[in-house]
Amino acid sequence: MSRRWTSRDVAALAGVSVATVSYVMNGRMSDRIPATTRDRVLAAARQLDYSPNRAAQSLRRRKTEQICLIVDSIGVPTNDQLARDLHATADEAGYGVITMVVDSAERAAKTATLLQQRIADAAVIGPAKVPWFSEEMLIELARGGLPLVAMNNSVRPNGFDVVRAPEAGACGEALDHLYANGRRRIAFVGHREEVNDPTARERSERFGAYRAARERHDAAFDDSLVVEGADDRVAAYQAVTELLNRPDRPDAIFAASARSAISSVWAARDAGLGIPDDVAIVGCGNLPETRITRPPLSTVGPPSADDFTDVSRLLFDRVLASDPPPGRELTTPWVFAPRGTS
Amino acid sequence: MSRRWTSRDVAALAGVSVATVSYVMNGRMSDRIPATTRDRVLAAARQLDYSPNRAAQSLRRRKTEQICLIVDSIGVPTNDQLARDLHATADEAGYGVITMVVDSAERAAKTATLLQQRIADAAVIGPAKVPWFSEEMLIELARGGLPLVAMNNSVRPNGFDVVRAPEAGACGEALDHLYANGRRRIAFVGHREEVNDPTARERSERFGAYRAARERHDAAFDDSLVVEGADDRVAAYQAVTELLNRPDRPDAIFAASARSAISSVWAARDAGLGIPDDVAIVGCGNLPETRITRPPLSTVGPPSADDFTDVSRLLFDRVLASDPPPGRELTTPWVFAPRGTS
Repeated sequence: MSRRWTSRDVAALAGVSVATVSYVMNGRMSDRIPATTRDRVLAAARQLDYSPNRAAQSLRRRKTEQICLIVDSIGVPTNDQLARDLHATADEAGYGVITMVVDSAERAAKTATLLQQRIADAAVIGPAKVPWFSEEMLIELARGGLPLVAMNNSVRPNGFDVVRAPEAGACGEALDHLYANGRRRIAFVGHREEVNDPTARERSERFGAYRAARERHDAAFDDSLVVEGADDRVAAYQAVTELLNRPDRPDAIFAASARSAISSVWAARDAGLGIPDDVAIVGCGNLPETRITRPPLSTVGPPSADDFTDVSRLLFDRVLASDPPPGRELTTPWVFAPRGTS
Repeated sequence: MSRRWTSRDVAALAGVSVATVSYVMNGRMSDRIPATTRDRVLAAARQLDYSPNRAAQSLRRRKTEQICLIVDSIGVPTNDQLARDLHATADEAGYGVITMVVDSAERAAKTATLLQQRIADAAVIGPAKVPWFSEEMLIELARGGLPLVAMNNSVRPNGFDVVRAPEAGACGEALDHLYANGRRRIAFVGHREEVNDPTARERSERFGAYRAARERHDAAFDDSLVVEGADDRVAAYQAVTELLNRPDRPDAIFAASARSAISSVWAARDAGLGIPDDVAIVGCGNLPETRITRPPLSTVGPPSADDFTDVSRLLFDRVLASDPPPGRELTTPWVFAPRGTS
């Protein structure tokens, strides 16, 4: 029935040019088209049940038997584990998985268009340090009929499911434990964004917990103790080696990733320092590898190391449902696991 | 003009049922349909220029502006770097990248069908420990008009490009160097397949070089020195720790991955052994991380750590060419970089 309407009708209803409609529906020039215009066009298209081309129409009727996994980076252990778990569930259900990396607003817009054209039958949006998919975009995709699960601590379920893993509580607990053991100069090894981008820093539960604990325990603020390295084992090793060679070296390190915490253990050992006596170390995330460092790494992270069965279950509940269930929310707070390094 | 023909015509020409044609063209039941039947159907379909459905027809005319990257595993540093490099080039060209993991013959068949239906405009098939995409499948895809680059040391260019990275020479050089320094009991830390699957072991250039060097130097064959762990940092640490605690412990370790070589360094240090005096270590691959181990890791691998610009260049030459260039072949042999651990 959507045949009746053309891009001209959408353009007329949205009060824009036909070209603009085509740009928006095809995800082109997304950097040149104001979000308000884009939303107006998409709203008009939805109202007329218009969709960009017959290929998309046909795809919408046809099952691709693919799940789209969206991550903000490949090569991050958590995302890799998420991909493996999703692959395993998808295999059982006879589905494939296509992974797309979204690390910019433009890529998010392009990916949303591909999903609207049904490059896959459903999508999982993995945890992201920056929420490239706005709540509006998620609602838009879900309204279009796409089964969707978002791993996101800030959005609310709305035609899609939300899987939350609140970090602040466990991070605060770990930091209180460090201060309680007499640590006063705690360094923060953060991700690129957490260290350099003020808005990302504001959004970071890990940095927020670090700053709050420092205030709670009246520790002096020393911004030179906040360094980059959580994204990269080598950068972390080098940054922490530098910190530990300073005369006023930190007596503890709170690392925003497990990989950088592991590099911190190696940096401390290579610097001839005792762990935890000379320097305590706590990392975020539960990589299996955290068990083979010497001493074993104290961590904050998901209670069960990388278990994403909930995500898969929610998604396939939606994919296989005759009519879509209401939006659901699953919350599993992080926990603090003190081990040998603190 | 392909409109003239239907699945009935293909079925008649191939001498199979219409259902079988549909299964093959849609990649269903691939486990139940003999390869010979599948090939007969695809040959008939090609002869009649038949393609499964209008969605596929329409997609074939329409550019998806996506590149498909096929890897055998996510979370392997080389594949992750390949993905990042391909993303960078694709961004410049205004293309997106979708990544698909193919680690079984069934997934390869399904992925080939999706590519024939143009889920992407072009494809890169990354290095794989097992060649799930047969030379025939690559030729089939290329004939269908898909721009294709295969990172593969055994197939020949044929309507697609081949990027080769021969390993045997550098591996042999590294092993000769170990024997020349008086090592007699060299352990091999291999990938799951290299250790457990006889055909994969036969195909492995790394294991082949290990066995050849052992014979070349009249070293005794001790199969208990061949252990699993190259896929997994934790498994490698545990396997090597076990080896090094044996009374007849190895005096050198040849690790088939950089990650397992790094775990070997940790295992040796935690066992209180001197590197290289008590045990020498050589790893395969040039992770940046190999520079921060103490001592720095001796490696065999690509001359420049993870540089995949060649792959991207070859691919986009094809994607952007008005008429497809002949199949090309780029060969960059591995090199041996002796550092501190040997």
